[in-house]
Amino acid sequence: MEIFMDKFHEECGVVGIYKKDKKDAAKFAYYCLFALQHRGQESAGIAANEDGVINNKKGMGLLSEVFSNGNGVDCLKGHIAIGQVRYTTAGGSNIKNAQPFDVLYKGMQIALAHNGNIVNVKNIKGILEDSGVVFNTTSDTELILNLFARNIKYGEVFAIKELCQLISGSYALTITLGNKLIGVRDVNGLRPLCIGENSRTYVIASESCALDAIGANFVRDVEPGEIVIIDEDGLHSYKIDSSAERKMCLFEYVYFARPDSIIDGISVYKSRYNAGKIMARENPTDADIVIGVPDSGIPAAIGYAKESGIGYGIGLIKNKYIGRTFIQPSQKMREEGVAIKLNPLRDVLEGKRVIIIDDSIVRGTTSQKLVKIIRDAGAKEVHLRSASPPVISGCYYGVDTPSKEHLIAANLSIAEIAQAVGADSVGYISLAGLIEATGGNGCDFCRACFDEKYPITIPHNI
Amino acid sequence: MEIFMDKFHEECGVVGIYKKDKKDAAKFAYYCLFALQHRGQESAGIAANEDGVINNKKGMGLLSEVFSNGNGVDCLKGHIAIGQVRYTTAGGSNIKNAQPFDVLYKGMQIALAHNGNIVNVKNIKGILEDSGVVFNTTSDTELILNLFARNIKYGEVFAIKELCQLISGSYALTITLGNKLIGVRDVNGLRPLCIGENSRTYVIASESCALDAIGANFVRDVEPGEIVIIDEDGLHSYKIDSSAERKMCLFEYVYFARPDSIIDGISVYKSRYNAGKIMARENPTDADIVIGVPDSGIPAAIGYAKESGIGYGIGLIKNKYIGRTFIQPSQKMREEGVAIKLNPLRDVLEGKRVIIIDDSIVRGTTSQKLVKIIRDAGAKEVHLRSASPPVISGCYYGVDTPSKEHLIAANLSIAEIAQAVGADSVGYISLAGLIEATGGNGCDFCRACFDEKYPITIPHNI
Amino acid sequence: MEIFMDKFHEECGVVGIYKKDKKDAAKFAYYCLFALQHRGQESAGIAANEDGVINNKKGMGLLSEVFSNGNGVDCLKGHIAIGQVRYTTAGGSNIKNAQPFDVLYKGMQIALAHNGNIVNVKNIKGILEDSGVVFNTTSDTELILNLFARNIKYGEVFAIKELCQLISGSYALTITLGNKLIGVRDVNGLRPLCIGENSRTYVIASESCALDAIGANFVRDVEPGEIVIIDEDGLHSYKIDSSAERKMCLFEYVYFARPDSIIDGISVYKSRYNAGKIMARENPTDADIVIGVPDSGIPAAIGYAKESGIGYGIGLIKNKYIGRTFIQPSQKMREEGVAIKLNPLRDVLEGKRVIIIDDSIVRGTTSQKLVKIIRDAGAKEVHLRSASPPVISGCYYGVDTPSKEHLIAANLSIAEIAQAVGADSVGYISLAGLIEATGGNGCDFCRACFDEKYPITIPHNI
Amino acid sequence: MEIFMDKFHEECGVVGIYKKDKKDAAKFAYYCLFALQHRGQESAGIAANEDGVINNKKGMGLLSEVFSNGNGVDCLKGHIAIGQVRYTTAGGSNIKNAQPFDVLYKGMQIALAHNGNIVNVKNIKGILEDSGVVFNTTSDTELILNLFARNIKYGEVFAIKELCQLISGSYALTITLGNKLIGVRDVNGLRPLCIGENSRTYVIASESCALDAIGANFVRDVEPGEIVIIDEDGLHSYKIDSSAERKMCLFEYVYFARPDSIIDGISVYKSRYNAGKIMARENPTDADIVIGVPDSGIPAAIGYAKESGIGYGIGLIKNKYIGRTFIQPSQKMREEGVAIKLNPLRDVLEGKRVIIIDDSIVRGTTSQKLVKIIRDAGAKEVHLRSASPPVISGCYYGVDTPSKEHLIAANLSIAEIAQAVGADSVGYISLAGLIEATGGNGCDFCRACFDEKYPITIPHNI
Repeated sequence: MEIFMDKFHEECGVVGIYKKDKKDAAKFAYYCLFALQHRGQESAGIAANEDGVINNKKGMGLLSEVFSNGNGVDCLKGHIAIGQVRYTTAGGSNIKNAQPFDVLYKGMQIALAHNGNIVNVKNIKGILEDSGVVFNTTSDTELILNLFARNIKYGEVFAIKELCQLISGSYALTITLGNKLIGVRDVNGLRPLCIGENSRTYVIASESCALDAIGANFVRDVEPGEIVIIDEDGLHSYKIDSSAERKMCLFEYVYFARPDSIIDGISVYKSRYNAGKIMARENPTDADIVIGVPDSGIPAAIGYAKESGIGYGIGLIKNKYIGRTFIQPSQKMREEGVAIKLNPLRDVLEGKRVIIIDDSIVRGTTSQKLVKIIRDAGAKEVHLRSASPPVISGCYYGVDTPSKEHLIAANLSIAEIAQAVGADSVGYISLAGLIEATGGNGCDFCRACFDEKYPITIPHNI
Repeated sequence: MEIFMDKFHEECGVVGIYKKDKKDAAKFAYYCLFALQHRGQESAGIAANEDGVINNKKGMGLLSEVFSNGNGVDCLKGHIAIGQVRYTTAGGSNIKNAQPFDVLYKGMQIALAHNGNIVNVKNIKGILEDSGVVFNTTSDTELILNLFARNIKYGEVFAIKELCQLISGSYALTITLGNKLIGVRDVNGLRPLCIGENSRTYVIASESCALDAIGANFVRDVEPGEIVIIDEDGLHSYKIDSSAERKMCLFEYVYFARPDSIIDGISVYKSRYNAGKIMARENPTDADIVIGVPDSGIPAAIGYAKESGIGYGIGLIKNKYIGRTFIQPSQKMREEGVAIKLNPLRDVLEGKRVIIIDDSIVRGTTSQKLVKIIRDAGAKEVHLRSASPPVISGCYYGVDTPSKEHLIAANLSIAEIAQAVGADSVGYISLAGLIEATGGNGCDFCRACFDEKYPITIPHNI
Repeated sequence: MEIFMDKFHEECGVVGIYKKDKKDAAKFAYYCLFALQHRGQESAGIAANEDGVINNKKGMGLLSEVFSNGNGVDCLKGHIAIGQVRYTTAGGSNIKNAQPFDVLYKGMQIALAHNGNIVNVKNIKGILEDSGVVFNTTSDTELILNLFARNIKYGEVFAIKELCQLISGSYALTITLGNKLIGVRDVNGLRPLCIGENSRTYVIASESCALDAIGANFVRDVEPGEIVIIDEDGLHSYKIDSSAERKMCLFEYVYFARPDSIIDGISVYKSRYNAGKIMARENPTDADIVIGVPDSGIPAAIGYAKESGIGYGIGLIKNKYIGRTFIQPSQKMREEGVAIKLNPLRDVLEGKRVIIIDDSIVRGTTSQKLVKIIRDAGAKEVHLRSASPPVISGCYYGVDTPSKEHLIAANLSIAEIAQAVGADSVGYISLAGLIEATGGNGCDFCRACFDEKYPITIPHNI
Repeated sequence: MEIFMDKFHEECGVVGIYKKDKKDAAKFAYYCLFALQHRGQESAGIAANEDGVINNKKGMGLLSEVFSNGNGVDCLKGHIAIGQVRYTTAGGSNIKNAQPFDVLYKGMQIALAHNGNIVNVKNIKGILEDSGVVFNTTSDTELILNLFARNIKYGEVFAIKELCQLISGSYALTITLGNKLIGVRDVNGLRPLCIGENSRTYVIASESCALDAIGANFVRDVEPGEIVIIDEDGLHSYKIDSSAERKMCLFEYVYFARPDSIIDGISVYKSRYNAGKIMARENPTDADIVIGVPDSGIPAAIGYAKESGIGYGIGLIKNKYIGRTFIQPSQKMREEGVAIKLNPLRDVLEGKRVIIIDDSIVRGTTSQKLVKIIRDAGAKEVHLRSASPPVISGCYYGVDTPSKEHLIAANLSIAEIAQAVGADSVGYISLAGLIEATGGNGCDFCRACFDEKYPITIPHNI
């Protein structure tokens, strides 16, 4: 992959649609997933439920590739649909892992989509395999669906409660069977999930921007440990017994979520903008211009500029057309100067002292390239600021992260980082500052990648 | 097509590569075209020249679709290559019109790529057809190539001079034959074309951002009426006899070009940023926030905010994943609230007096939607500003424009426009202001879409 | 589907390759499957096993479409491979049903391909689901794989013996796991399976023509109830305890198998040729020419001609290019005379008394069309002969058959059939005659479609 | 390509449809082309004419691939259509050469499809290029279309007569423009073309089997040097002035045409069957069985068996599924015994003295393989017979042939050929015998590949 893609990666986005007006739900799922495409570009799928008969279409690539020219959406009949978009992880890019998953249990079809990661998959699969259960994939989603199906005879609520007692980790789920749409959020609320509604439609989705996409009003977030069941009688809420604390992933605000989403009452854009302002106070420096790394560094840059009084500008132009089938330049071509993703604006940068804001610094490889690009464009000084605290540890809850030895902040001091990336100075927002930026309560977040305090025990054999 | 796509559209971008080191040129053409993809998404093609043997691969769709996973680029051998990306016009989306064009004339292969539009095609074709020439397409490019080929026996320079005496209109050309790469810019310089170089490579391209993409240094623009021939002995320049004045398309600065390009010595970003500043002086208004319509309205919004002292912010989030195969929502779904391209940031807009800057207002349909979206997001006031003057007339020189009766500013006063789009106020930069923003000399631009002064006569039968 | 496709249909063909020379096995599986393509055109797949790591690639369509231009075969590493081709059944054309199937059980990958049909699937799945097992598909193959995997801890032989005690029906299996290739044939030997070998390769395949395709020598058929395990130490044979009698499907000789295959010691071509000869004795008639319905009726026609002394000729030409994506003519176009599959040779048929031999008569719809075509081509008389006895009942053992009310011989007398299809006479070979044609022992065949004597009980709820 | 494909190859088939009932013609062209698919598998195309507006869709591959699932045929409107299928030649497989060709001349669209080869292309192009005409391709069809268009102002008949005075070679053409469908056959009638009709439709096609495919009655062949124009007033016939003699390609009867076609009054099947009978008299030999090489050797084998009294049988089974995307086995795999196209029937051949009939022997490479296969299957003796005379020279009139040094009969005596291919004996039908088999007049055929008497002078620079 490409040098500028040195980021943590969300592993997916989910949606569920229930059409009160009994119209087909699949196309609405399509537009919601389209709004969630930033959460995953490996595969996409929609399962539609017509009176218990489930039709599930999925494929590799972007949503618009899987349902190319609408091909296939029209065949998905029924007033309930769920969908998922999935991130491409290194090894596992495989149609087998595309979601939603579906099964047939005693003549009943069930489809399920999952955002998150179960940490004790191997442990539970071990027990089940001892009793003769056979799995088709290594996917934790297959396990969740198995656990749900085997208890479905006791009712959906019981089946979900049971499975939640067994699995540890993060999960935002949408499920459909019979005439029901179900949403579940894990007891810590690690992954986001919210509810929307208008006169014709209920929608459950990873982010509120998906609600906006189909003109649904935001109702509320699904609570940590809440089960939401939507059927003909409306929306019903159940609570999983748990003493777990709310531990929403803080990195959603930093990078994953779309800026126009509001998660657990917090505007993503605002939290990024505020982070910029706070950084300007925590890490002030004299400069002529503040620029952001597109796209996720921009809001913090605007905030930084506002607070510092230094002018805001655009310093880097991003090529919007990079897709799956693009030919990455070889190492040799890069050395010859081929640089395809970000181009500096020499006119803006030349002779200037530049503050550049990125949303985070992971390996540091991107930062080094960026600093060089900006300097080559004539900048006199380059000051790099990260709108998240030093990333020092990996994630086990549904985010693709490099191992610790590749995390620059886990291995170098800030001064060393500045030297390594070639910047005149490097600064990070503090963890307290980031939490302040969200306006939230610090206790409510999982911030293990910043402080290694993992809210859920990680098994020895993960 | 979609409501938010109410823009003028450039019809293409061209490139030519000459590898001094005799390495294959096609991949370099690929990366240059990739940087020019914003100039056309209908079709893409690259013709490579290996000692006079030309291999031409082209197809419909984005460059990355035509050369999916690099498929095909490696087969294009030779140290010279030309390429083109082309815009999708309503009716003529057809592989036949994909460029480059190539012909075989007396055993000699010639390939040619064209950005622009010849206005007297029918007239010249009429004469040629009388003498028995048969054309395969309605394309003006086929005509140019015919005129070039039939005089090639007198040498390339003569052949180009001859054809330039015959054709009227705009043309930036890259041509290859034998062991030569040729670039030509029309006598008015209506369409941009520039020259780059490094130790291994010469490059001729529509915009300087294509030079940056392969690490070539900007040498200079091709002059209006200049013929540039690159061969083993280096770069040779010839001049077409003409009393024509420089008339570079002003709209390139407004919308077409990438902000990181520099055209005829003028930074595109700077001119947009300056336009914002000048508008703030020409059209001041009290407000709480300045936002831009992504992506082309952003630089002017930053400039406007800077000059006015009103805070700059992001008010609209654009979905980046809209592509050719995306299913456009039906009229009915739009009425139900499906809105897939731009989403407002309620947190930023709510209760605010908002100034929104767009690069231009063409039909006004987009503006109306935008004003409504921002108002629905809670804005108290919405003031729309256009970073270009009122668009009152169509273009004949290679830009796809609606007819006059669809141009809102050709039919309504500014007050009426404000009412029509539902804004509290509407303001346009003045033509003088826009020219000032470029820092250029007003005489040097074609601004016929703003003032109906067409630098080249339009034939009666166009 | 098309009118001329009124046939019983085999549901698949399987293969397994073990390369003694440790070369990659997948390409050999490809050529074997290619020779078995007549057994199924819906989907194709190959699973390759490299030291226990199994890579499984499958897709819809012909083998040459799934592995288009070899795409994908080269990625399938390992010296063991299994493969399958599958017939398209009406409703279930779905990538989910494509084979081989594979699972992951306690860290061990297993892949399995199946030809046949298990009749008590629902009964066994019911028990397993009660104990919490969840299935992804309605496929009997998934059940077989589950039953195999859950007992694998006791060894492969035990696991297969166990599953054979549970399942009833027909199954020719190829399985791979660890460093082993396994072949299993059901206790009745309903579906064919044979073993081939040369100095570099072992091969297990549905038909001997697959052995020929890769230059392997025919070793022997897998016996009914035999388990064959191939590993580093060579080929090992085990026997499932059973008192079941050999009941090879008689219809394989009539239609399914390729004429160049030899199954259980009987040449398919010979048995068809002999059937023609016997028919000539059983159903003689005066005529001028004997023709066959291409391709499966040809050998019997040659035999009939030989025995009767009446000249053999070609009377119908078949279009070879009909494939999956061909546009079937509408009813209206057929009425206008569009006839795309079989064209008569007027020169051969005009003024003649014609005997036409088909391999079987199922619904009779094809026969009616054929008789009309031949009469329209000028034949004076048309005598239809079926090289198999009257088909009066459906199959439950892996063959796609119409229901009894659509089988013409189950509903009409031979005289009525002649009238219904418009023939001057209709004749069938006797069951005894067909068995004589094979040269086999009549007791050894399942001929339930001819005499309704089903060797395996059919459950009430099938 | 594959070893068994040692054949001459026809370069294409053409069709033209005129719907009297004003229904859309394209689908009828589709079914006709489908019946002509054996004449070319490289590319296919249909151009439909709706009141002078021509829509031309073409692509690489089989007809069913180009119009996959009917995609595209429905868009081709108009009651006139022409179409073509084209053979894949070694180097020139290119979408540019796909037919029909179309041009726009003075606002008039013309489409044209061509079967044949013009020998003096270079000469005429040279003159035209001197006068400034530029060509896009090396295709002779482009030249024909140019010559036709430039004289169209004098009427279609004049334009065709003019072009026929200029071009030498073979051509069966279908053309459409305005409200007309035109068919032209060259003055020697080298390539076949015939006329069909029913109450709703006129059809012009390369072979009569295409008429049968759409239920049209055979009217007559287009005469050598005849121009047929079909419009609202019916069918009009014009004659090109010429003293040329009829010289229909004899090889059409030997191999190219479908056996169910009747060309110039001669049944293709009959001529092959008769050739077999005549060979039995000319080249008798003692044997136990006569077999044919599928598919084109079969009719002659039936005739040979009939005449000789030796039994006819099937000795080789051909795999029907070989297509464009099939993976050809490597040389190494072939040496290991991978043999995918033809499989011998050991049961039929073992211990027998076998006469094998092929339609022709070109390079002899196939013959060698076939003899070996049959011997390996246990045959005691193998006698090879060719149903056409020794092929000693190439074709310049639209057939793809190897050069003379690769034609075995041009270089070796019959005894040497028998030794080279490993047969116990080799025999050819005599040229007189082949002509007798057709029942035609020997003077009426071009048989230059057998006797080097070329009816049309071949230019020095071809």
